[in-house]
Amino acid sequence: MIYADYNGSAPLLPCVKDYLKRRLETDLFANPNAIHSMGQKIYSGIEKCREVISKSVGCYPDQIFFNSGSSEGISHILFSCLEYAPKNKKIIIASGIEHAVIPSALKYYEERRGFEIKKVDVNQDGVIELESLYKLIHEFNSSIALVTIMAANNETGALQPIRDISQLCQENNILFFSDTTQLIGKGDFHFEDSGIDFAVCSGHKVGALTGSGFILAKNPTLLRSYIFGSHQERGLRGGTQNYMAIETLAVALDDFMKNKNKLPLLEEARKKFEAELKKDFLDCRIIGENAQRLAGTSLISYPGIHGQAIQIELESHNIFVTTSAACSDNQPETSHVLKEMKIEDDIGRGVIRLSLSYHQNQNDYEMILKALAQAFNKLKKIKAY
Amino acid sequence: MIYADYNGSAPLLPCVKDYLKRRLETDLFANPNAIHSMGQKIYSGIEKCREVISKSVGCYPDQIFFNSGSSEGISHILFSCLEYAPKNKKIIIASGIEHAVIPSALKYYEERRGFEIKKVDVNQDGVIELESLYKLIHEFNSSIALVTIMAANNETGALQPIRDISQLCQENNILFFSDTTQLIGKGDFHFEDSGIDFAVCSGHKVGALTGSGFILAKNPTLLRSYIFGSHQERGLRGGTQNYMAIETLAVALDDFMKNKNKLPLLEEARKKFEAELKKDFLDCRIIGENAQRLAGTSLISYPGIHGQAIQIELESHNIFVTTSAACSDNQPETSHVLKEMKIEDDIGRGVIRLSLSYHQNQNDYEMILKALAQAFNKLKKIKAY
Repeated sequence: MIYADYNGSAPLLPCVKDYLKRRLETDLFANPNAIHSMGQKIYSGIEKCREVISKSVGCYPDQIFFNSGSSEGISHILFSCLEYAPKNKKIIIASGIEHAVIPSALKYYEERRGFEIKKVDVNQDGVIELESLYKLIHEFNSSIALVTIMAANNETGALQPIRDISQLCQENNILFFSDTTQLIGKGDFHFEDSGIDFAVCSGHKVGALTGSGFILAKNPTLLRSYIFGSHQERGLRGGTQNYMAIETLAVALDDFMKNKNKLPLLEEARKKFEAELKKDFLDCRIIGENAQRLAGTSLISYPGIHGQAIQIELESHNIFVTTSAACSDNQPETSHVLKEMKIEDDIGRGVIRLSLSYHQNQNDYEMILKALAQAFNKLKKIKAY
Repeated sequence: MIYADYNGSAPLLPCVKDYLKRRLETDLFANPNAIHSMGQKIYSGIEKCREVISKSVGCYPDQIFFNSGSSEGISHILFSCLEYAPKNKKIIIASGIEHAVIPSALKYYEERRGFEIKKVDVNQDGVIELESLYKLIHEFNSSIALVTIMAANNETGALQPIRDISQLCQENNILFFSDTTQLIGKGDFHFEDSGIDFAVCSGHKVGALTGSGFILAKNPTLLRSYIFGSHQERGLRGGTQNYMAIETLAVALDDFMKNKNKLPLLEEARKKFEAELKKDFLDCRIIGENAQRLAGTSLISYPGIHGQAIQIELESHNIFVTTSAACSDNQPETSHVLKEMKIEDDIGRGVIRLSLSYHQNQNDYEMILKALAQAFNKLKKIKAY
């Protein structure tokens, strides 16, 4: 089997599985906030994990706030920045290629809180135009409550110029949130160096347990309670800490740290795969081809062949891919990301997304290439009728 | 070892551990929203769990919304009911014995949304006074946005008259949310029969994985998005579904269904334990003694002896208890629940909470009694100095 849907969800890493198997043999299950020794042991385990994770993502341990994942993290950050924004700051700058959480949350702040959203332009490779952001910042400067632009796109894998964006925001004293869900555990990321004010992580995107994750906050005093509760996570995230999942986050991000030197090889294999695919199938298109992308992400379209047809063919070879973002995978239309990139429907409906992990390599790409070539050859005949 | 902190957190049930060990041997880890067969298998697993859980809690499957647990569930329900309340409804009726999430959330709605909180009286056994609720409802009737009263108190175990409350609320067309975190998986509960509008569950209170849980909504159209996202949980709870944790919720609540006939025996053993303790230690006090309580919960105080001292003594016998609610366990003062019950500080600071599960029995209580008697005898001598 080749699993090629890491941007949708990463299966548990082998080291995480091993950890969990050993963990289940212990009797250490209790409330980390209890004063008995079991509770205290679990609590100190959480703090050790915070240390490990801080090293992996380049921040101070007390800049990490554990939660249930990025959808919660994004909702929490937007609430903190927008609900508590000064009254004169009613402009939000966002890209049109954000993950579904962002537009759905922004709609709420637009409709019920009187915010106005200004969209930054995106080029044909799915990368935001800095010039467009620059203009918006200069036009709306002191009325801007927040700039929200993701770090790596979930569909195309296109990396966004987050350092340039954070520099621009810092110069203008504007808060910058970057959805780093697809970058953490898949590419180079260092929170402090990035200059971002808020970032997020989902455990299930990095090979840890689903339902885990965290917020990174440069200045934690800007965070406000969203999931209410007691003093957990310094009063900023109520609910009994999901300690076993937090432990798997530390195991997974530590594994990434130890293996991220494999990323250049993965990227090279991906580029070779894409080049060979295009050589054999002249009509085939790689979306975001010229963008710097996540090492293992390709969004591929063959005009006139529906992505789902290709997905099914690949599955008959035991290769698992999706047609776009997992969470909108059963919507048979061009995604909002591709529309934003002005991709024609004929191309947009035909896409399949391959997203591989740092533990995969050229062998996987070779097998995928073979199966994909067979699928294209078969389906283009059907298309011709 | 005797673990007696089930109201704080239930260790994973043995059947849940077994399930997880087998589950980790599979390769079925993917995004349940993906169209490939792995995603679809996981998705249909979630829906099977919804069926199992619906039977255990007495509701329709589509009244269940999976989330990360009760703190999220409560925050979500309060947001749905209060943020979207008609403008003329600005009164919230709440008890003063609610779990910390509720007062901290209500403070937000009071300070930033102009709501006013009216507290319903509580008797000396920690049970709300229906007469007091009746008066408040008649005084504020059409301006009441919500009544929020828990089903079973986490510290005393006192059961609240939720059927009477829901009847009163229904007669007056008022929404009633009951925090059922401590009742589900520990006592008799049937959502439909209860008449409650909204209820919540936390996985780690029922022996499932931490970081899992759900909302029950009588009328799901009253729920609004709080954790934003895509179409997950019918568009009402964003974020990739925590499928493995949901699976453990089904395993745990099914185990409860099969074993809840053990509850009367547990209650009998608890009553016998309490009677013997009081016989041997005349000064000893059981808080909420005359209330109907969760079968395995006792909140015990020995005036002048600090609860933490008893907790440490018991731990030397490998018995794990807490001094009050786990999440405020390291605050050395009388809890807000006991203050509300007008318990004097001398008693309030001395409490230890024993909370046992339906898998425990008279043997456990006998061992606890022996250790507790030793602790009391030792510590009351120190107290005398």
